[in-house]
Amino acid sequence: MAARVGAVASFQPRDPAFESRVRASFARQSMMTTLGAFLERVVPGEVDIALPFRAELTQQHGFLHAGVTTSIADSACGYAALTLMPPEAAVLTVEFKVNLLAPAAGQLFIARGRVLKAGRTLNTCSGEVFAIDGGAPKHVLAMLGTIMTVENRSGLAD
Amino acid sequence: MAARVGAVASFQPRDPAFESRVRASFARQSMMTTLGAFLERVVPGEVDIALPFRAELTQQHGFLHAGVTTSIADSACGYAALTLMPPEAAVLTVEFKVNLLAPAAGQLFIARGRVLKAGRTLNTCSGEVFAIDGGAPKHVLAMLGTIMTVENRSGLAD
Amino acid sequence: MAARVGAVASFQPRDPAFESRVRASFARQSMMTTLGAFLERVVPGEVDIALPFRAELTQQHGFLHAGVTTSIADSACGYAALTLMPPEAAVLTVEFKVNLLAPAAGQLFIARGRVLKAGRTLNTCSGEVFAIDGGAPKHVLAMLGTIMTVENRSGLAD
Amino acid sequence: MAARVGAVASFQPRDPAFESRVRASFARQSMMTTLGAFLERVVPGEVDIALPFRAELTQQHGFLHAGVTTSIADSACGYAALTLMPPEAAVLTVEFKVNLLAPAAGQLFIARGRVLKAGRTLNTCSGEVFAIDGGAPKHVLAMLGTIMTVENRSGLAD
Repeated sequence: MAARVGAVASFQPRDPAFESRVRASFARQSMMTTLGAFLERVVPGEVDIALPFRAELTQQHGFLHAGVTTSIADSACGYAALTLMPPEAAVLTVEFKVNLLAPAAGQLFIARGRVLKAGRTLNTCSGEVFAIDGGAPKHVLAMLGTIMTVENRSGLAD
Repeated sequence: MAARVGAVASFQPRDPAFESRVRASFARQSMMTTLGAFLERVVPGEVDIALPFRAELTQQHGFLHAGVTTSIADSACGYAALTLMPPEAAVLTVEFKVNLLAPAAGQLFIARGRVLKAGRTLNTCSGEVFAIDGGAPKHVLAMLGTIMTVENRSGLAD
Repeated sequence: MAARVGAVASFQPRDPAFESRVRASFARQSMMTTLGAFLERVVPGEVDIALPFRAELTQQHGFLHAGVTTSIADSACGYAALTLMPPEAAVLTVEFKVNLLAPAAGQLFIARGRVLKAGRTLNTCSGEVFAIDGGAPKHVLAMLGTIMTVENRSGLAD
Repeated sequence: MAARVGAVASFQPRDPAFESRVRASFARQSMMTTLGAFLERVVPGEVDIALPFRAELTQQHGFLHAGVTTSIADSACGYAALTLMPPEAAVLTVEFKVNLLAPAAGQLFIARGRVLKAGRTLNTCSGEVFAIDGGAPKHVLAMLGTIMTVENRSGLAD
């Protein structure tokens, strides 16, 4: 039983254009441009976002502000969920929780969002941010959140 | 009993210079400058941060990115805790939880951080963000988080 | 502005039988009977549950187990949301976050659930647990959670 | 880099008697006896707790109450952290967040707690609950939480 308990979900996208759709929506998130973040990897149920360190994004001790690592983790989770949504749906974050495991010190930060459960309306996602600074990546943030699949709401897309 | 159940804590600051200390630390958070946020109100156990809307801070639908409202709520909670810390301590966010009650649409956003419980090492804080756009303020974000009082760690202050 | 920022919502129930409906559903939660909890107060958007201390419900140090205070806070939040739901809907917890402010020591515990935002599908609720032991009530738990209004799902009611 | 980003921590216990210590503390959690839960697996940084379904532990639709699955996930996380603590320390839950991925229907429930980061004072843990009912285990709960290592507090042990 132990072996089966950890089984990882595999996902079938419902929109074959999921990757271009995610990339186009990401490009419209002006906040990602302001941060200097870019979209690295888009596969069904999983998305990576990279962010180089910038001194304009820090808190009082010189580490990245928690709101910055949270921003890229939230976008990674939301877009991981969007890869699995039907073509006409829009993505909306309902809630998340973040644990800060270590100060966000480093040259490059990678946020990975992953769908744990894709439901009809609600999707549960986990996010992680790793700091890279020469040696092994350091795990700096863990996220657990809920992303909504919004259908039939005029004016909202992707 | 009902009346007593909702009682609000009142706090005595342990550092008489709490306000200038919070203002100096806020000024070192380059992320707040990048967002265009400013510190409004600093009283023992409670801090308000204001942020005018800017198109550079949005997600794909044109609302403020959840990471932006989270950033000002986190700073408001952290500084609410700092108002009550002893002079030599530094403030560090351990974790927070955020519920997004409505899209962050509006001209001005006010984040209020409030200490629910000030402990020796850990402080529990609640945060709220309101959007203001002509009419009554709209409650857009609720936060609950843990802020650590860090003592005797060389190199970390406020 | 400061005065308006803290404004409390007032709610109109959509089912005039909201109280008897909540009481009947609570009576079907066998877990509440197992804990020895009872439903105290049911008003639109707000529900109180009381639980006397019992040694069978403790963790290793003799305080109530966090799962116990969480159970009554979750039921209080869920039923606060149910007071506002349309007649045919069922209530389901999506997620919650809990901060434990102090050890759950005392003779009586009161959980209060309150709706912060009632949406069409999702409701955001806050919960608090107070311990009562002679003196002033002590705030031992803060909860923030999401409760779903489930409609048109056969077999689920209230 | 992708391969290294997911790396799993491996832990060295600081108390060689970690397993008997966890088992003795679990035996003192009367709540676990009340639920009918038992401790299955105790390894450094990871603990499994099993709970057979019982009708006395349900919510109004006949599924296990969220407070029940939360209780075993919280104990699994706390004891996962305790496996790594120094001999004289006590374990205390600071906070957690829970996402309910599916109704807790099944004959047997397994909660697995795992340490993500073991710090001097604070430990970040993740928890999962799986429901087993003939077929493949179903993931019903995800937890992310903070567990405190309490030292030098008279009267608290393990």
